[in-house]
Amino acid sequence: MTSHSSTVEPIVWTGHSLRLLDQRLLPHEVVYVECKTAEAVADAIRTMIVRGAPAIGVCAAFGIALAAGDTHDRDSTDRNVHEAASLLGGTRPTAINLAWAIDRMLRVAAATTGPLHATMVREAESMFREDIAANRRIGRFGAELLGDDTTILTHCNAGALATAGYGTALGVVRATREAGKRIAIFAGETRPYLQGARLTAWELQQDGFDVTLITDNMSGHFFARETFDAVIVGADRIAANGDTANKIGTYTLAVLAHAHDVPFYIAAPLSTIDLQCPNGAAIPIEERSGSEVTETLGWDRDGQQHRVRVAPDGIAVRHPAFDVTPARLITAIITDAGVLRAPYATSIAEAFSRSGSAD
Amino acid sequence: MTSHSSTVEPIVWTGHSLRLLDQRLLPHEVVYVECKTAEAVADAIRTMIVRGAPAIGVCAAFGIALAAGDTHDRDSTDRNVHEAASLLGGTRPTAINLAWAIDRMLRVAAATTGPLHATMVREAESMFREDIAANRRIGRFGAELLGDDTTILTHCNAGALATAGYGTALGVVRATREAGKRIAIFAGETRPYLQGARLTAWELQQDGFDVTLITDNMSGHFFARETFDAVIVGADRIAANGDTANKIGTYTLAVLAHAHDVPFYIAAPLSTIDLQCPNGAAIPIEERSGSEVTETLGWDRDGQQHRVRVAPDGIAVRHPAFDVTPARLITAIITDAGVLRAPYATSIAEAFSRSGSAD
Repeated sequence: MTSHSSTVEPIVWTGHSLRLLDQRLLPHEVVYVECKTAEAVADAIRTMIVRGAPAIGVCAAFGIALAAGDTHDRDSTDRNVHEAASLLGGTRPTAINLAWAIDRMLRVAAATTGPLHATMVREAESMFREDIAANRRIGRFGAELLGDDTTILTHCNAGALATAGYGTALGVVRATREAGKRIAIFAGETRPYLQGARLTAWELQQDGFDVTLITDNMSGHFFARETFDAVIVGADRIAANGDTANKIGTYTLAVLAHAHDVPFYIAAPLSTIDLQCPNGAAIPIEERSGSEVTETLGWDRDGQQHRVRVAPDGIAVRHPAFDVTPARLITAIITDAGVLRAPYATSIAEAFSRSGSAD
Repeated sequence: MTSHSSTVEPIVWTGHSLRLLDQRLLPHEVVYVECKTAEAVADAIRTMIVRGAPAIGVCAAFGIALAAGDTHDRDSTDRNVHEAASLLGGTRPTAINLAWAIDRMLRVAAATTGPLHATMVREAESMFREDIAANRRIGRFGAELLGDDTTILTHCNAGALATAGYGTALGVVRATREAGKRIAIFAGETRPYLQGARLTAWELQQDGFDVTLITDNMSGHFFARETFDAVIVGADRIAANGDTANKIGTYTLAVLAHAHDVPFYIAAPLSTIDLQCPNGAAIPIEERSGSEVTETLGWDRDGQQHRVRVAPDGIAVRHPAFDVTPARLITAIITDAGVLRAPYATSIAEAFSRSGSAD
């Protein structure tokens, strides 16, 4: 398969199962979970063993490939594939790559006569390779936007861990270094799930980047001190007008970037754009359990894992897992089909017609 | 002593020692630490057993009173008092109330002939009562600014726990309810030290308020959804031009409030205003240990306390404990001498001359 240019391999297809790096245990333990069924893949997505919009799209494709291998009878296989598609499609509501990947697998299935298993596996493998190739193009386009010595702020994890293996926002970071430029990264820790502290800090540290961890509420202070040359984040769903849903906290960074005249970039493949979705108000926002806010998973000095409570019992909690950044706050969307700028309705439509993938 | 109108008593003077509610163990355990010496009080401030600008000012005053009780010889007492003042003054750099309280104790000491101990105790007790009275005035002035059915956002803990017992920002909350109005509070958890989750959520829950906990990075989302009628926070130091240092994350909320046309209020006594400090750039910002970012203290389901790590070993961390909100983003400063508005250089000077306390 395609080289990752990252030491991190979040998704490994063994030929008969999907091995997923358990991101809940990072950065403390590097443990893979083996999924042999679509149900196991769905569980892995729901419980956030794997997360990140492009990554869960690719995993759902492999989940359908696994479902297609259960029987040799084509009718049963079709039923299994559709059941798996329905199950996988219901795991996370916000990321559009999930629906995109499932839809693509079902269309290939519908166009295939005879045994389906090998075709489904090949299609999922293609999607895996295409995701890394798309990330590399995003990286090259993004690197051209940055200067020779740049400090960026990122949020959540839009890295190798969120994709098949190179990253969208962190793909831009990798490509910038590959282009011979100096880049430093501030990673917001990304409460409540701490993807920034646990995943981005770890992933960038693994690959020797200059990364500094801050809590999310420190970003304003560093904007005021002119620390950042740009903000680069990923996306879970981009509406046809450019409004972008991404991890909770992204919108705050966009407002801060705008107030400080710092470019705010979204890095995402075209598969994250939902042409059926006219604007941000139409994007469903997943509300997750309050216990993810009141409890934190971590490790003590002896390496023992504990889930600790940090708020009083019985406290009311809100936990929207994503927010929507309006297009007017986005300097550019860095896609695998080039850098898109406002007016996004036009530039997005043009990018799809150029790439011939307005599906 | 004055009634608290809060079930929470963070600071109790026993007549010969200072009993401090150990805020590091909240909300899980209600434990008091008894301080019999100025050194013990200094340790309690440094290790954040007690925190909050007005509270540490009052504690420092009692610390000096304790130092004044060690000997009966006036020369030795003066030496002890000055040593205690120096020790206590060095515990936290940002909160100006600390310097204000110590300065007041030293001036009273200098003006006193003969035995000092009883005078120092009386002065500290006065400061305790005056702090609660000032909080109550802040509360009444603030309540007049709010409607009959209000939802506010607050940050960190500017409550009973941060003062002698009623609160500044949360004093406004209490007074609003006492005025017969309905008030709901969103509390930002306030990473890294979680004063919002551990202290504000608990304190408001104890007194039966409608409080909802969110992570700091969710505030933008709720601003966009028009959830908040106002933001009310405390202050650690206010410069003569109105620029305000407060807990890290405050500046971000001020930018968000401005972008969404929501009033942004500072609630603080005049003792938090530093007339010697011309503007925010002159306020020293305490940088605390990175381990407070990478490690979190909490409790498991069995009530066992654990300090858990949530970031990779060896990661670089920044931890400014405060940030500065420029006066132009502050709708009003609610003080014990009335509601001050821009231009703050003028309104602050007038408030001091009205109160006769331009010391």
